Amino acid sequence: MDFYNKNTHSKDEILLPFADDFHIHLRQGIFCDNIVKEIKKGGVDRVLVMPNLSPPITAFKQLKEYYNRLKSNEKDVEFLMTMFLSDKINIDELEISKKEANLVGIKLYPNSVTTNSVEGINDIKSCYPVFSKMQELDLVLHIHGECIGSSVLDSEKDFLENVINIHNKFPNLRIVLEHISTKESIETVLKCNDNVVATITPHHLQLTIDDVVNNSYNYCKPVAKHKNHRDALREIVKSGNKKFFLGSDSAPHPDYKKLGKNCEPGIFSSTFLIPYLAHIFNEIGCLDNLENFVCRFGSIFFRLPIKTKKSIKIVKQKQLVPNDINIGLFRVVPFLSGTTIDYTLEFL
Amino acid sequence: MDFYNKNTHSKDEILLPFADDFHIHLRQGIFCDNIVKEIKKGGVDRVLVMPNLSPPITAFKQLKEYYNRLKSNEKDVEFLMTMFLSDKINIDELEISKKEANLVGIKLYPNSVTTNSVEGINDIKSCYPVFSKMQELDLVLHIHGECIGSSVLDSEKDFLENVINIHNKFPNLRIVLEHISTKESIETVLKCNDNVVATITPHHLQLTIDDVVNNSYNYCKPVAKHKNHRDALREIVKSGNKKFFLGSDSAPHPDYKKLGKNCEPGIFSSTFLIPYLAHIFNEIGCLDNLENFVCRFGSIFFRLPIKTKKSIKIVKQKQLVPNDINIGLFRVVPFLSGTTIDYTLEFL
Repeated sequence: MDFYNKNTHSKDEILLPFADDFHIHLRQGIFCDNIVKEIKKGGVDRVLVMPNLSPPITAFKQLKEYYNRLKSNEKDVEFLMTMFLSDKINIDELEISKKEANLVGIKLYPNSVTTNSVEGINDIKSCYPVFSKMQELDLVLHIHGECIGSSVLDSEKDFLENVINIHNKFPNLRIVLEHISTKESIETVLKCNDNVVATITPHHLQLTIDDVVNNSYNYCKPVAKHKNHRDALREIVKSGNKKFFLGSDSAPHPDYKKLGKNCEPGIFSSTFLIPYLAHIFNEIGCLDNLENFVCRFGSIFFRLPIKTKKSIKIVKQKQLVPNDINIGLFRVVPFLSGTTIDYTLEFL
Repeated sequence: MDFYNKNTHSKDEILLPFADDFHIHLRQGIFCDNIVKEIKKGGVDRVLVMPNLSPPITAFKQLKEYYNRLKSNEKDVEFLMTMFLSDKINIDELEISKKEANLVGIKLYPNSVTTNSVEGINDIKSCYPVFSKMQELDLVLHIHGECIGSSVLDSEKDFLENVINIHNKFPNLRIVLEHISTKESIETVLKCNDNVVATITPHHLQLTIDDVVNNSYNYCKPVAKHKNHRDALREIVKSGNKKFFLGSDSAPHPDYKKLGKNCEPGIFSSTFLIPYLAHIFNEIGCLDNLENFVCRFGSIFFRLPIKTKKSIKIVKQKQLVPNDINIGLFRVVPFLSGTTIDYTLEFL
């Protein structure tokens, strides 16, 4: 129980350290240079960066360049880096990547499951040599757990046997099942040892499939499911289980890519991340769990220093989420755009 | 078995009479004047017209005006008219509506279930006096069967007990369960006597929820469901059961209303209706059932003359469905826009 930090916060003001977001998409080029500036606005100063660029990050040199570019554009944020699991990875580069480019994990995308994942995995067994090396170097395996070919309603559930198989074969490999959206994923994480955890996004705590079908801005992978699943995610967060913590999967797309046919999956949440979560945790009735969810459980799993200095103040004061945000040259529509949320963020 | 007309058609050419579409939205004003011209292009010359205008059609005078406007803009199509079930209906006007404005049925929309349905029904029992009069006049009850408050995945299934209740109370009332999307609806229709039938749209025979989440042009009510349900609809069509026939629910919206937040439900299929169905029936392997589905089963249920004169030729020849169609002042995106379908229509 020493993992818990159950302060009884005043409901009107909560002081927190800057939060950790263990799943973020920062894109490339000028878009990237501008997106990184949104991280701190959302109350976050440490992020785990996804590697699904075009081309995906599979080599040390590429990783190091990306890491340096991120740091040069946002000095106040710590970037935890990942590589994209593919047959292009040279396992002899992992150690130096860890030492010199802050590599903490490798991300498994099934082939073509989401944005920029055409070089993803077809046969998980082919990755076993990489998993062995990762276990040796204590790198974390991040999994986008969806089965290609299954319906969007079944794809996550159908993937779970793969997680169990990897875990059974590599019980000391630390695994993060990313952005879970189903009760079956919760059950799977709970069945495994402490090396298997999950991240949860604000949008999967809020949306159901009903919110997706008539609003393409709410389309993401995995797709938000039936209310039963959304409520199971809310329950596990409310229970304060340390295996479940924040990974926002904030995924900006220019507005025009979020509309009509073949629209891109992804919800952008960085700019208002902690206010969204305060709003949702308050709705669930577990504001007291917020600090553990956004500042502690993830840090503990990743063996990172736990921040103690209070740096942000969450104030119970309504704010209107704008219809769009200009990020560099692009108009990006944020999560819950045009609606009012109950909390605002101040910096101490 | 005299309902069946199982010609073995050549797979390359099929001759048919003009088809009947027992569910179409023709809108209002100039938009309407242009939409009616699309009906025959799709191979149809008799349509059952939905009454969810703004305001909805609840009175004889209104119905007559709409009927006259439709006829004046398209003389070669027969319009079968419906009224919108609400407490505004005066049952003493039903008989004259039937005689002078071709009224054949009344449509039940649960309150706010789809486009222009805010004046829909909250309490079905309050409609019993209208149902009695309809039974007496042999008017057909058309039902948009979705429960408000249920998830889009459950709403149709959850509504079915209402259909059973109405049918048990009014066993001689002819009922069409419109645009069915679930296997539970098929089962319900099969359980009832011959007075209860269902219409099926081309899009519910083709799409699943997977096609909806990343393409707002595929959003309609009821929402396309899991593949299991889509396949059950294909099976019942393939079985050639006379209780299931065409109602396209073709529902044009200007393009800008089909994009982004709160996009409008509805798929526009009139312009290529019979080619779509030939394409889909061929895919299912039941082209021989097409004539019954689009020309006979519905006519028999509605006690209309069955057309025998062959007027259209369906040719196995690929065509590209355009990205959009100009209808009056508006750009409308048709069903399967930008894709190639396997059949083309010629007029004899």
